[in-house]
Amino acid sequence: MERAGRSSTLGSTDDVELEPSGTSATIHLDMTAGGGSSSSDFNPFGAIDDVRFKTDDDLPDVMAPPFFSKYGDFHTIDWQRDLARDRLRHKMISKKKVDFPLGLLQSGWDAGAGWICVLFVGLAAGATAGIIDIGARWMSDLKTGVCADRFWLDHEHCCWSSNDTFYKDDDCKAWTKWPWMLNYYNSSSFLFLFLEWIFYIGWAVAMSTLAVLFVKIFAPYACGSGIPEIKCILSGFVIRGYLGKWTFIIKSVGLILSSASGLSLGKEGPMVHLACCIGNIFSYLFPKYGLNEAKKREILSASAAAGVSVAFGAPIGGVLFSLEEASYYFPLKTMWRSFFCALVAGIILRFVNPFGSNQTSLFHVDYMMKWTFIELVPFAILGLFGGIIGSLFIFANIRWSRFRKNSKMLGGNPIYEVMLITLVTAAISYFNPFTRKSAQSMIQQLFDRCEDQIDEDSLCDQNKALSIAFGQLLWALIFKFVITIFTFGIKVPCGLFVPSIGMGAIAGRILGITVDQIFRAVQATPGHSDYFTCQIGKDCVMPGLYAMVGAAAVLGGVTRMTVSLVVIMFELTGSLEFIVPTMVATMFSKWIGDGISKMGIYEAHIELNGYPFLDSKGEYPYSTVASQVMRPSIHRQVADEMSMSDLRELKNELSVITESGMTLGDLESLLRQTDFNGFPVVVSQNSMHLVGFIRRDILLALHTARKTQPYVVTNSIAYFSDGVPDAMPGGPAPLRLRKILDMAPMTVTDQTPMETVIDMFRKLGLRHVLVTKNGKVLGIITKKDILQFMRNKNSQ
Amino acid sequence: MERAGRSSTLGSTDDVELEPSGTSATIHLDMTAGGGSSSSDFNPFGAIDDVRFKTDDDLPDVMAPPFFSKYGDFHTIDWQRDLARDRLRHKMISKKKVDFPLGLLQSGWDAGAGWICVLFVGLAAGATAGIIDIGARWMSDLKTGVCADRFWLDHEHCCWSSNDTFYKDDDCKAWTKWPWMLNYYNSSSFLFLFLEWIFYIGWAVAMSTLAVLFVKIFAPYACGSGIPEIKCILSGFVIRGYLGKWTFIIKSVGLILSSASGLSLGKEGPMVHLACCIGNIFSYLFPKYGLNEAKKREILSASAAAGVSVAFGAPIGGVLFSLEEASYYFPLKTMWRSFFCALVAGIILRFVNPFGSNQTSLFHVDYMMKWTFIELVPFAILGLFGGIIGSLFIFANIRWSRFRKNSKMLGGNPIYEVMLITLVTAAISYFNPFTRKSAQSMIQQLFDRCEDQIDEDSLCDQNKALSIAFGQLLWALIFKFVITIFTFGIKVPCGLFVPSIGMGAIAGRILGITVDQIFRAVQATPGHSDYFTCQIGKDCVMPGLYAMVGAAAVLGGVTRMTVSLVVIMFELTGSLEFIVPTMVATMFSKWIGDGISKMGIYEAHIELNGYPFLDSKGEYPYSTVASQVMRPSIHRQVADEMSMSDLRELKNELSVITESGMTLGDLESLLRQTDFNGFPVVVSQNSMHLVGFIRRDILLALHTARKTQPYVVTNSIAYFSDGVPDAMPGGPAPLRLRKILDMAPMTVTDQTPMETVIDMFRKLGLRHVLVTKNGKVLGIITKKDILQFMRNKNSQ
Repeated sequence: MERAGRSSTLGSTDDVELEPSGTSATIHLDMTAGGGSSSSDFNPFGAIDDVRFKTDDDLPDVMAPPFFSKYGDFHTIDWQRDLARDRLRHKMISKKKVDFPLGLLQSGWDAGAGWICVLFVGLAAGATAGIIDIGARWMSDLKTGVCADRFWLDHEHCCWSSNDTFYKDDDCKAWTKWPWMLNYYNSSSFLFLFLEWIFYIGWAVAMSTLAVLFVKIFAPYACGSGIPEIKCILSGFVIRGYLGKWTFIIKSVGLILSSASGLSLGKEGPMVHLACCIGNIFSYLFPKYGLNEAKKREILSASAAAGVSVAFGAPIGGVLFSLEEASYYFPLKTMWRSFFCALVAGIILRFVNPFGSNQTSLFHVDYMMKWTFIELVPFAILGLFGGIIGSLFIFANIRWSRFRKNSKMLGGNPIYEVMLITLVTAAISYFNPFTRKSAQSMIQQLFDRCEDQIDEDSLCDQNKALSIAFGQLLWALIFKFVITIFTFGIKVPCGLFVPSIGMGAIAGRILGITVDQIFRAVQATPGHSDYFTCQIGKDCVMPGLYAMVGAAAVLGGVTRMTVSLVVIMFELTGSLEFIVPTMVATMFSKWIGDGISKMGIYEAHIELNGYPFLDSKGEYPYSTVASQVMRPSIHRQVADEMSMSDLRELKNELSVITESGMTLGDLESLLRQTDFNGFPVVVSQNSMHLVGFIRRDILLALHTARKTQPYVVTNSIAYFSDGVPDAMPGGPAPLRLRKILDMAPMTVTDQTPMETVIDMFRKLGLRHVLVTKNGKVLGIITKKDILQFMRNKNSQ
Repeated sequence: MERAGRSSTLGSTDDVELEPSGTSATIHLDMTAGGGSSSSDFNPFGAIDDVRFKTDDDLPDVMAPPFFSKYGDFHTIDWQRDLARDRLRHKMISKKKVDFPLGLLQSGWDAGAGWICVLFVGLAAGATAGIIDIGARWMSDLKTGVCADRFWLDHEHCCWSSNDTFYKDDDCKAWTKWPWMLNYYNSSSFLFLFLEWIFYIGWAVAMSTLAVLFVKIFAPYACGSGIPEIKCILSGFVIRGYLGKWTFIIKSVGLILSSASGLSLGKEGPMVHLACCIGNIFSYLFPKYGLNEAKKREILSASAAAGVSVAFGAPIGGVLFSLEEASYYFPLKTMWRSFFCALVAGIILRFVNPFGSNQTSLFHVDYMMKWTFIELVPFAILGLFGGIIGSLFIFANIRWSRFRKNSKMLGGNPIYEVMLITLVTAAISYFNPFTRKSAQSMIQQLFDRCEDQIDEDSLCDQNKALSIAFGQLLWALIFKFVITIFTFGIKVPCGLFVPSIGMGAIAGRILGITVDQIFRAVQATPGHSDYFTCQIGKDCVMPGLYAMVGAAAVLGGVTRMTVSLVVIMFELTGSLEFIVPTMVATMFSKWIGDGISKMGIYEAHIELNGYPFLDSKGEYPYSTVASQVMRPSIHRQVADEMSMSDLRELKNELSVITESGMTLGDLESLLRQTDFNGFPVVVSQNSMHLVGFIRRDILLALHTARKTQPYVVTNSIAYFSDGVPDAMPGGPAPLRLRKILDMAPMTVTDQTPMETVIDMFRKLGLRHVLVTKNGKVLGIITKKDILQFMRNKNSQ
C-alpha cells in the first residue's frame, strides 16, 4: 500500500533503488545541493487535480510471463529484456513452422502482423483526421451562423449547394447569420454587429467550455498537444491510459470543439497523439505488439508518422518527424512500416477529402516565380527572427506554465482559465480580419501569391488597402504571440504547429511586403532598374513565399525541428525550388534558437513536467566518471575515511544478496525491510564480486517455493550458484534459485566516463547499470540517476 | 616486418588478439570446422593484382597524440575512443573561449567548420557531377560521329546550334557521321551500316580500354561501384587511398569513358564514391575531421547523400539513402548537414545544367492521368518480378564474381575482360534501337507517356510498330540482364542503378503494353465498357507509369532499398499520386527478394570480399551466449577437463598483465613474444579480477621510460595500481604506468546473450569486449569474432 502511494510522486521510473527513498537525499553526495531531494518533487501531472492513477502497484510485483511485459504506471520499460522476450517468442514460432499447415500459418501471420497492424492504423488515422477536419470546419462556421435548409452543411458547402447569388465576402442567403434569427438584417447597423460579436464570443466560449469539461470529466490525459508525452512514451515510459480509447474519443471530440472555438491552437500535435492512441488500441489485436511494450513502440512510431502525415498531408515529412522528433528506437524496418502507415493515412484522408479541394496538403501553394539570390538576405533575417521569437515564446510559455502549476488559483480552476482565454481571444480577434477567420484560412491567404486571388485581397492591393492590411498584420502578430503563450497549456486539446506557422506567416508576409516595396522603390530610381530581373507592375518578390519561409522559421524556432520541417514544407509546395529559402531560414532559426536556449518547446515541457526522458540527440561533454554519479552501496564519504577492515564490517549491512549462504528467511526479511526493485548477487559479502542481478521477481519465486515445495522452510539456504550441496539429513532442503538469476547484468567500471555510460543507456535502452571495480560491486547507476545528473549539469 | 606482411592477408581488423595468429585455428573451438582458419583467406581485393598497400604497420604502433587518430590500413576504428578524443578537443576549445578575441574566433570556427566543410563538398560534388555528365554525353555521341564545325558539341547541341533542318531521328547535317568521313553517304547501303557498326564498336572498345588502363595504372581503387566499400568505410573500416585524390581523378575520367562506351553500367554508384572522395579530401582542411576518423565519417555520410543527390536530382532521397543504405553512425546533426550538403550539390548541378533542360532530375516524368485501383494487381506482379529477377541477378553476379576472383585467367587479365565485354555489348546492342541509345535516353523514352512524344515512337503506335517494339523490348530485357551480370564487377568504374532501372523499365513497359491491350480488348467487348473509367481511343493505362514502377521494383530487388528508393522515385515524379504504385511494387519486391535471399547486392559483395562489416540493420535470433563465442584466455576444452588447482597453474601462462609485480623485462618479453594488440590487466594471476586494459601503446611508454627515467631498469617493477611503494634503497625504481591504463574497458558477463553483445558492438562501435564471470576475466570477443560467428551462423 505504501508503494502505491509512492508511485505517483516518486518511484516513477521503476529504477532499481539500492537505498530506501527516504534516505535518497543523503546518497547523492557527489552532486550539488538539492540534487538528491528533487526526486521527491516529481509529479508528472502536477496541475491536473483528478488524474486517476490506474496503478497496479498494489498487486505484487509478479514475475512476468514469458511473452508479456508488465510494467507499472509511470515506469520505464526495459528494452533489452522486452526485445529478448520477443526473440524468444520468434524462435518458438520458427520452430513450429514445420507443423504444416497450422505452424506455417502462424508463422506467416506473425510475419505479416506488423504490416496489417500499421495498415489498420493508417486507415483509422486517415478516417479520424477526415472526420475531425469536417467537424471542426462545420463547428467553426457555427460561430457566425447556420445553414438554413441543411444545418449539417458548413458555410462554403451551404452557399455552394444553395446555388444562391453570392454576396460580398462569400456570403449567401442560405447561410443564416445569428442576428437574422433575431430579425436584425441590416448588417451595417451597430446592433447587428454587436449581436454578431456577442454570438461569436458566446459560441466560442461554449465550445471551449464543453471541450474542457469533457477533458476534465472523462479523460484528463486528452488535454494539451501530447507530443512531449508521446516522446517520453516512445522512449520507454509507461503512462497507463494515456493512449487509451477514452483519451482517443475525448481528444477527438475536444479537438473539434477547441479548434472550432477560434482559440490560438492547432490540430497537428493532438493529431499525432490521436494516431498514437489508434496505434495503441490496434496493437492489442496483435499480441506480439500488445503484450510487449518495446515492440509496441514500433507501432507507435509508425502511428506518429501517420499523425503528421494526415496533419500536413506530408507522408515523408511524417516519417522524418517520427525519426527526428518523436522516436527513440527507430530501426529501419520500423521506418519502412512508418512510411507505409503514413502513406495509407494520407490516401484515406484524400478519399475523405475534408477540404473539398482534392488536395492532401493543408496549405497548397503553387508559385510560378523564381526567387533571386539577393533575397536570401531577408530569408536569413526571417530565420533570425524565427529563432528569437521562438526562444522568447518558449521562455514565456514555460514561465507561465510553471506559474500555472504552482498557483492554486489557476491550476485548480482549469475551466475558468479556458473560458477566460477564449473570451479574450474571441473578443479581440473578432475585430481583425486576419485573426477573425480560422488560422488555416489566414495562413492560406498569407501563403497565396497575389495572382491567385479572385476575391479582392487587401494584401495584393498596391493602394491604401495595403497599408491598412500592414497595420492589421502587425497587430495580429503581436496578439497571436501573446495569446498563444497563454493558450498553449490550457486543459483542452491544443497543438502548437498552426499558431507557430501563423505567427511566422504573418511576420513573413510583413517582411515580404516591405521587401517588395523596397524593390519597387529602388527599381523606380533611374539607373537601378537593371539590378532586378522583375518588371515594374508585376510582383517583384513573392510575399507569399516570404510568408512560407517565415512560417518555417518560427516553427523551427519553437520546435527546433530541422530536416523534417524542411521536408514538410517541401511537401507543401512540391518544388525543389523553394527548399533553399526554407532551408536557409530554418538553419538560421535553429542556430539562433540553440544559441539562446538549447531546448525546444517539447523538451522544455518534458523538463517542466519532470518526465524521465533521456534525449537521444544531445551531446554531453562532461568530465565525470561513473563512480562519481553512481549511488554507492554504502556511504561514500564514510567509506573514504574508513580503513579497509572497518569497511569490511560495514559491508555486511549492504543490500546485496550472496550467491549462497543466505536463508529463505534472510531473503524475505531483506525484501520486507527494503523496497529496492533489485539486488546485485555477489560471491560473498567480503569479496563483493558480482555474480548476477536479481529483480523483485524473486518474491514470487519464494512464495511459490513455500507453497509447492514442502521441505522448503525459513531456514532453507538459498543457492544462486551452480553447485548445490545435498541437504543434510534432517536439515532443511536447499532452495535452488539460479534460474531466476539474471546472469547478464550490464556493468561498467568505476572509471568509465559518463559520456560512455549515457551512450549505453541511450543506445541500449538500459534501466540500470552496475558499477564495478576490479570485479567488485561498488554501486549502481539508474536511469533516474542519469537524468538527475544531466539536469544538475545543465542547470550549472 | 612480419606484421606488415600480415596486414594484407590476415590482421585486417586491428582487433586485439589474445593468441598469435598462427594458432588461431585452434582457439575457435566452439565454432564449426574452418571457422578459425577462414580468417587467413581474408584478402579484400583478391582480384586486383597490384593494389599498393600503403601500410604503415612497419611503423611502431605509437601512442596516438591526443587529437589524432592513427589507424593502419584495413583496420577498424575505435568509435568510442575517437569520439572521446573529439570531446576532449572540444572541451579545450571551450575553455579557451574566454580568451578574447582569438579564443572566441577559434571556437566559432570550430562550430562552423562542419557546415563550411559540407558546403565545399556540396559545391564540388555538384560541379563534378555536371562535368562528368557533360563529358559522358559528348563522348557517348562520339561513337556515331562528331560535330563538323565545333567538335566539342554533342549531337543534340550540334544540331541545335547549326540551325539545320532535321533529318529523321534527330539527325542533322552538321553532325558528321563516321562513314561520311570515309565518303560513304548512302545511309541505307550495307557498307555504310557495316562501317557505322564497326566505328560504334571500335569507339566503345577504345573508351573502355582506356578506362581500364587508367584504373590499372593509376588507381586500382577506382574500379567498381564503390558502394560496398563506402558502406564498410562508413562503418569504421579504414582503406587508405580508397578516398584519395588519385582515386577521385581516375574514377572521374574513367567514369566518363566507361559510361560513354555503352557498357551496361551506371554513373550513380561511382558518383557516391566520388562524392565521398571529395568529402575525404576536404576534411583534411579541417583538422577536427581530417585527423579524427570517427568524426570524418560524419562528413563522409553527408558526402554520400550529396552523391545520390546529384546522381538523381533527389536531395531528400540522398539523405535517406545515406541513412538507410550507407551510413552506420548517423546522428541527427549529421542528417541535417547531409541534407544541406545534398541540397547544395543539387543546386550547383542545376546551375551547370548538363542536360540542357532546366530539370535536376535524371528522368523527368509528368503524368496527367490517374491510376485505378485494379492496376495495383499488375503493380504487385511487377514487384514480384523485381524481387525474383533481382535475387537471380545477385546470385548470378556473385557466382561470376567469385569465379573471377578465383580464376587466374580472368582475374589476372582485367583489360582483356573489359575489352571482350565491351566488344560483345557494343556488337549486339547496336542492332536493337532500345539498347543502342544510351541507357538514360532509353529509360526516358520508356518512362514517357505517349502524348508527350513528338517524334514518332514505335511504343505509342497501336499498329504493327508496337508488336515489333514489343519483341525488341523483350530481347533488350534478356540481353540487359545477361550482360549486366558479367559487367558489374569488371575493373572500370561501374554502377548498378541505371542498369537495374533500365531492366525494370523495360519489364514494366512490356507489362504496361500488355495490360493496355487487355483493357482495350475488354472494353471493346459489349457490356464491359463501364468497368473502366478510361475512354476508347485514349490510353487506358499509362505504360510509362508501369515502366517507372518496374524500375523501382527491379532496383528494389537488387539493392533491397526501401524508403530511400520510394523517395527517390517520388522526387523524380514530384507527385504523391504515384508513390502508391511505387510503394506497392517496392514492398512486394522486398518481400520476395528477402524470401529468396536476405542479402542485397552490396551486402553480397561485402561478404564476397570478406570486409569486416557489421550490418547495423539485421536481427540475429541466436541462442548463444558470450562465453561460447569468446576467444578464451586458455584452451577451453582443456579447462573443462581440469580441476581447479590444475587450472590455476595453467593460468600463469595466460597473456594477461598483473596490476603490480611484473618487471619491465617481463612486459617487454611478453610484448616481444606475442603480437596481441592489447592485454587485460588483472589484480593477480590467481584471482584474474579485471582492473583494466592496456593497448600495445604500452611499448612506446616503456621505450620512453627507459630513455627518460635513468633509474628505470629491466628489473624495475611496473605498477598499474594506485599505491606504488617507495623504491627499496638501492633497488630499482618502480615504474608507474597507471596513466596509460584504460580503466574503462567494456565488459560483459559470460552468460550475456550474443544478441546483446552484437547490439553493443553495433550501437556503441566497439572493437572488443572482455568477457568476465564473477569479476574474473574469462576471454575476449573482438569484432572479428563477431563477424566470424555471424557468418558461421548464417551459413548454417
